[in-house]
Amino acid sequence: MAKYTEMTRQELTEEMAGLLARYGSFKARGLKLDMSRGRPGADQMDLSRALFHQIDEDPQSHRADFKNATGIDCRNYGGLDGLPELKKLFGDILGVAPEQMIVAGNSSLHLMFDTISQAMSAGLAGCEPWLLQGGVKFICPAPGYDRHFAMCEYFGIEMLTVDMTDTGPDMDAVEKLVQDPSVKGMWVVPKYSNPEGITCSDETVRRIAALRPAAKDFRVFWDNAYAVHHLEDEGDGLLNIYDECVKTGNEDLVFQFVSTSKITFPGAGIAAEAASPANIAELKKRMSFQTIGPDKLNQLRHARMFRTEADVEAHMRRHAQILRPKFQAVLDRMEQELTGKGIAEWTRPKGGYFISLNVLDGCAKRVEALCKEAGMALTAAGATYPYGKDPRDRNIRIAPTFPAVEEMRLAAELLCIAVRLAAVEKLLD
Amino acid sequence: MAKYTEMTRQELTEEMAGLLARYGSFKARGLKLDMSRGRPGADQMDLSRALFHQIDEDPQSHRADFKNATGIDCRNYGGLDGLPELKKLFGDILGVAPEQMIVAGNSSLHLMFDTISQAMSAGLAGCEPWLLQGGVKFICPAPGYDRHFAMCEYFGIEMLTVDMTDTGPDMDAVEKLVQDPSVKGMWVVPKYSNPEGITCSDETVRRIAALRPAAKDFRVFWDNAYAVHHLEDEGDGLLNIYDECVKTGNEDLVFQFVSTSKITFPGAGIAAEAASPANIAELKKRMSFQTIGPDKLNQLRHARMFRTEADVEAHMRRHAQILRPKFQAVLDRMEQELTGKGIAEWTRPKGGYFISLNVLDGCAKRVEALCKEAGMALTAAGATYPYGKDPRDRNIRIAPTFPAVEEMRLAAELLCIAVRLAAVEKLLD
Repeated sequence: MAKYTEMTRQELTEEMAGLLARYGSFKARGLKLDMSRGRPGADQMDLSRALFHQIDEDPQSHRADFKNATGIDCRNYGGLDGLPELKKLFGDILGVAPEQMIVAGNSSLHLMFDTISQAMSAGLAGCEPWLLQGGVKFICPAPGYDRHFAMCEYFGIEMLTVDMTDTGPDMDAVEKLVQDPSVKGMWVVPKYSNPEGITCSDETVRRIAALRPAAKDFRVFWDNAYAVHHLEDEGDGLLNIYDECVKTGNEDLVFQFVSTSKITFPGAGIAAEAASPANIAELKKRMSFQTIGPDKLNQLRHARMFRTEADVEAHMRRHAQILRPKFQAVLDRMEQELTGKGIAEWTRPKGGYFISLNVLDGCAKRVEALCKEAGMALTAAGATYPYGKDPRDRNIRIAPTFPAVEEMRLAAELLCIAVRLAAVEKLLD
Repeated sequence: MAKYTEMTRQELTEEMAGLLARYGSFKARGLKLDMSRGRPGADQMDLSRALFHQIDEDPQSHRADFKNATGIDCRNYGGLDGLPELKKLFGDILGVAPEQMIVAGNSSLHLMFDTISQAMSAGLAGCEPWLLQGGVKFICPAPGYDRHFAMCEYFGIEMLTVDMTDTGPDMDAVEKLVQDPSVKGMWVVPKYSNPEGITCSDETVRRIAALRPAAKDFRVFWDNAYAVHHLEDEGDGLLNIYDECVKTGNEDLVFQFVSTSKITFPGAGIAAEAASPANIAELKKRMSFQTIGPDKLNQLRHARMFRTEADVEAHMRRHAQILRPKFQAVLDRMEQELTGKGIAEWTRPKGGYFISLNVLDGCAKRVEALCKEAGMALTAAGATYPYGKDPRDRNIRIAPTFPAVEEMRLAAELLCIAVRLAAVEKLLD
């Protein structure tokens, strides 16, 4: 395959004609495709239909069994930090003691927001509230998750971008930044990162655990959204961050987040937060003023469906079976259309929900616009960077999970045409 | 019956001997009674067992119907402000348009907390965050709901107590207090108030709606926890606060809260918030950073169980049938043992979850202690006042819902003995 960067204007013009013809015929089809968000597909949600009858009524007695293993009537008030079974299960998944888990409602994002909100208005570890300290900053490895960045913007937290490397956040940069006492936090998606699918190496985890931030109330927000979300039988391993923190005497450094949104139901799963005993006590104190307790019936459904970590793993293998062909459809098409042209690089993640595609500098927004014009929604170009601004305008997050495989094939082809077209346009400009 | 206050020391001493004998025999029974919290009983929760099979799997197709009336797959992400059916239903109950409703998770307390939290860290109506303004105060009608007061304490909001009258908060006092620009809020349980069961009169509602607070970001937190929770067929009526606010050009004044915690399941119901379009836009903006959406499956269960307001009303009549004898057991016993003795006054609410009992000044803590010693938990004396301090140490909140009727009879008898004993002790002191 010829490199676009080595083509003559004549060759590029001919290439463009062919691409425009293909693009035109795509446009004429009036497609409606969506690769914008990491939503599980209906086929994946069908895997969890057993959740609907975990609390069934006995036809004889007309009574449903709504008590958990320890005899709690899950319909009533109480149980601030969740059912013991789920504290155990999530604790097993994250490798922490059940007492270090808070099992809550349907959204881990909500838990992150509430944790930051607590830091803003009440403070952490006996320090002044962040809002009163003023000028609070967060370290934001990028490309990253747009909702993390949006949350910082909402709270007026200044974002300091550091690069993602193949082994996780650029730790040289991070280690320097934490010397500033106004740097109070850092986002990390440690496993199958959004959007690149990168898993932090052991060394990166150890360096994070060994950070010595100037601010006593600095915290790592460890969003382990894809903890068990492997695409291959041999998934990535991730070192236990809490154990490493304990080794370095840094156990209060990290808040961990996890959820079943992409295990059972995105809107009706269970989210949980893990932290050191001191951090958990601080979180629970706030929660005791905020709520009487979570929806324990939905927790009970989950506890019955997943008795052990092995149940979760078996379930996730069924997800992977559905997702692999969708990811493969995108990767195959990109391989076929983009390899060797010098205009794109992409990741081949072993898990998670995204493929990250870097196009020629200055072309991502154009690719997005071309796709949109032909009826396909992509995640907004720039969204993977703080303030929605990709400094090189090159990163595109591909979310291949929601459409069916056939649609995914179409979507991938359109995407590749748009990437090539944008590149030719740029080179001819 | 003889008034204790008119008895001689001799008579009081004899009275005491008889009471001590009864008290002693109660203690000897090793009872374990609980009148402390407004928890529905198991019999009440059994009324909602239909919730468990609102989303059933079809045995033929093995598919459950998880789509709502407008075709939303309730399993997936999205729907920030809740299902349209429930926005309509809660809107009907509160008398506001569906667009003015946010239907959320399982806890209205959580919605109140998040609303105050937003005011603290981001501000309301374009004003500075409360935390940065400093010295924020709330008007707290008392006796009132302990969790409201606790929330103020958590956020460092100074509480200004005003008396509850038979027609609601003492509005003369309220109208004066809102002239202070640091007064930012006011708690109201407008119907069947906690603990007294008082419903705001039309005049009180109109005076609240006509308030002209000095602070632009002053808000009334209208916790309509017992909106449909009548004990009698003829319940109290409550004027529509939002309509009154519109009439006085004050539509942004009020945040309203409601939930099904005491309609379906305390821990697994649905909570909602109502406000003006401008307020709703402000709340939704924050929520868009906080979550992708609520648990729509549990919302769907509720929407199917309650198609109309009339369905809710019919359901609440079944609750009332269960609750009336429990309330009556307490009222009968108090009537029998306390009337005419000049040592106690109590309310006879037409709805809600509590009976409020005022004993002789300085005796509430003693009554609590006596009950505790004999194996019965009461709501902590003082809890119905800001900072947990009842200035006259006389108010006791009785929660008759959770125990069975037979237990309730025992509990009421023990309570009456304790009230009489504490009074005699005081008069002999």
